[in-house]
Amino acid sequence: MLHELFTPSVQHALDLVGIFVFAISGALLAVRKNFDVFGIAVLAEVTALGGGLFRDLIIGAVPPAAFTDLGYFLMPLVATVLVFFLHPQVERTQTAVNVFDAAGLGLFCVAGTVKAYEYGLGLTSSAALGLATAVGGGVLRDVLANEVPSLLRWDRDLYAVPAIVGATMVVLCIRFEVLNDVTSGLAALTAFVLRLLAMRFHWRAPRAWNRRSSATEETEKATAW
Amino acid sequence: MLHELFTPSVQHALDLVGIFVFAISGALLAVRKNFDVFGIAVLAEVTALGGGLFRDLIIGAVPPAAFTDLGYFLMPLVATVLVFFLHPQVERTQTAVNVFDAAGLGLFCVAGTVKAYEYGLGLTSSAALGLATAVGGGVLRDVLANEVPSLLRWDRDLYAVPAIVGATMVVLCIRFEVLNDVTSGLAALTAFVLRLLAMRFHWRAPRAWNRRSSATEETEKATAW
Amino acid sequence: MLHELFTPSVQHALDLVGIFVFAISGALLAVRKNFDVFGIAVLAEVTALGGGLFRDLIIGAVPPAAFTDLGYFLMPLVATVLVFFLHPQVERTQTAVNVFDAAGLGLFCVAGTVKAYEYGLGLTSSAALGLATAVGGGVLRDVLANEVPSLLRWDRDLYAVPAIVGATMVVLCIRFEVLNDVTSGLAALTAFVLRLLAMRFHWRAPRAWNRRSSATEETEKATAW
Repeated sequence: MLHELFTPSVQHALDLVGIFVFAISGALLAVRKNFDVFGIAVLAEVTALGGGLFRDLIIGAVPPAAFTDLGYFLMPLVATVLVFFLHPQVERTQTAVNVFDAAGLGLFCVAGTVKAYEYGLGLTSSAALGLATAVGGGVLRDVLANEVPSLLRWDRDLYAVPAIVGATMVVLCIRFEVLNDVTSGLAALTAFVLRLLAMRFHWRAPRAWNRRSSATEETEKATAW
Repeated sequence: MLHELFTPSVQHALDLVGIFVFAISGALLAVRKNFDVFGIAVLAEVTALGGGLFRDLIIGAVPPAAFTDLGYFLMPLVATVLVFFLHPQVERTQTAVNVFDAAGLGLFCVAGTVKAYEYGLGLTSSAALGLATAVGGGVLRDVLANEVPSLLRWDRDLYAVPAIVGATMVVLCIRFEVLNDVTSGLAALTAFVLRLLAMRFHWRAPRAWNRRSSATEETEKATAW
Repeated sequence: MLHELFTPSVQHALDLVGIFVFAISGALLAVRKNFDVFGIAVLAEVTALGGGLFRDLIIGAVPPAAFTDLGYFLMPLVATVLVFFLHPQVERTQTAVNVFDAAGLGLFCVAGTVKAYEYGLGLTSSAALGLATAVGGGVLRDVLANEVPSLLRWDRDLYAVPAIVGATMVVLCIRFEVLNDVTSGLAALTAFVLRLLAMRFHWRAPRAWNRRSSATEETEKATAW
C-alpha cells in the first residue's frame, strides 16, 4: 500500500520537529491545569499527534503514522520528561516555546497539505486538511483540558491565517508544478514568519459585523440556546 | 470504489441544504461565544460536516464526502459570510433558523441511514448511524464551544427522538423493500414535523426515575466524581 | 477481510462484560449531570464503545465492531434502563460499580492490545492502543459531560498505570510467544487488581517537579494562555 512506502526523509524529519514543539505546548498546558504526569503525557501525545491522526483517518492512511512510526510516539514522551522536570525553566522561555510552536505550525501545514494531496485529495481539500493537520492537535489539547479552543477565540493573535497562507502556497506550487524542497520550505517559512509577526503585533481577526462590543462571554451564556 | 460512484443527485441536493442550515446554527453559536471570523467558519464547518464525517469514517467511505465534494466544503463558508455580516437579522429570525435546523435534522437522519445501509451495515446499525449523522455535528459544535451538548440536556426540547423516528422509518422501508424517493421524503418530513411539534409544545424526555427534582447541575458538580 | 472473520468467542464475551460495566459508569455520570433518558443512553454508548471505536478506526477495522455486533450496541441500552430506574440503588453500590469499572479496564486493555497486534501494529503501538481502548471511552464520557477528563486529573487514583501494566504484559507475552487464554487472563487480572489497590490506598501519580503546591486550578486559569 502507498502509505507503507511513503516516508521521504525530509518530511519525516520535519514531522519529528513539529511533533516535539507541539508536545511541549501540550505538556505546558497540562502542568498549568495541574494534571499528573500521565495527564501531561496524554496531553503531549494528543497535541503533537492529533492533527496528523485526524488527517490520516480522513485520507485513509491507516494505521496512521502516529502508530507505525515509533519516533512519532516517543517524541512527546521526551517532551513530557523535559517539561515534568524543567517546567519553570521552560515556562520562563515562553517566548522560545511560542517561536517553536510557530515553527510547528509552519511545518505541519505544509506536510499535511502535501500528504493529503499525495493520497488523492483535490487542491482545496488538501489545503483544508493541511490547516487541520496544523491546528487540529491544539484544538484537541484545549478540548481535553476543558477550555474554549484557543484557535476559535477572538482575543488571541492570528493562528489559522498563517497556516492557511502556507497551505495555499503549497497547493499553488502543486498547481503550477513547482513544488520541491525549496518551495515547500518557503511556504513553511512564510507561515512561520506570519505567525511570529501576528504574535509580535497582536494581529487579530475581526468578530462578527455589528457585534455589540459590550457583550461579554458571560452575558452570552445567559442567552445561548 | 463504491463511494466514488455513489452520488445520486437527490441525496446530494438534500445534503447541501442540510449542510447549509446546520452551518448557520454553528455560526450563530460562534457569534454568541464571541469567536472571531475564523472561529465562526470552523464552527460552521464542524457543525455542518461533523455528523457526515463521523458516518463516513465509520463505514470506511474515505476520503469522506466532506473532503471530496467542494460544495460540501464551501456551503458552510457561505453561511459564515451571511452570519458574519447579517447576524442580528439572522438572530431575529431565530424561529426560521430553528425551522431550518429541524429540516436539516430530518434530511440528515434519512440520508445518513441510507448511506450507512448502502455500505453494508445492518438495519439497526444503519439507523443508529443515521441518528449520529443528524445529531453528531451539533454535539461537536457544543463540545468545541465548551458547552454541555444541547442534545444531552434534559431542559431542551426533544431533538433525538424525531431523528430516531425518521431513521427507523427508513430502515422499515428498507426491510419491506418500499424505500424510494417518496417514502424517504416522508420519513424526513415526519422527523421534521415531530421536531417542530417538540419545539412548539416543549416536549421533553424524562430524567432518571426517582431523581431528586431539587438537584441542580451546580450541586451535582460538587458531588460528581 | 480479516476483521469480518475475527470474532473469537472468548474476546467477544470479555468485550460484552467490559462494555456493560463501562456503560454503567457513563449512565451514572449522565444522571449526575441531570441529562434526560436520551442523554443517559448516549453517554452510556459513548463510554462503553468509544475506546474500541477509536481503536478500530486507527487499525482500519471498519465498520467498527460497535456497528457490526448488535450485542455491543444493545448492552449500553440495557445499562441505561437499569440506571434509569434503579440509579439510587446503583449509586449506593458505588463500590461495586468501581470494582466493575476496574474489571472493564483490565479486560479492555488486554482485548485492545491483542486486536491491535492482530491487525499488524508493532508491539509498542499495540500496547498504546490497548491503553487507548481501555481509557478512551471514559475520556470521551468526560468531554461530552463538559468535565476535565478524570484520567488526566492528579487528584484521582491511578487509572492509566494498571492499564499500561496490563497492556505491557500482553505485548511481552506476544514477544515471547506465550500469549494464550491463561496469560492474557493473568494480564487482565493484574490490571484489575492494581486498579483495586490504587483505589483502596489512593495511589496517585506525581505532578510536575517543582510545582508550586499552592497553585490551584482556579489561579491557573487566570494565567493560562
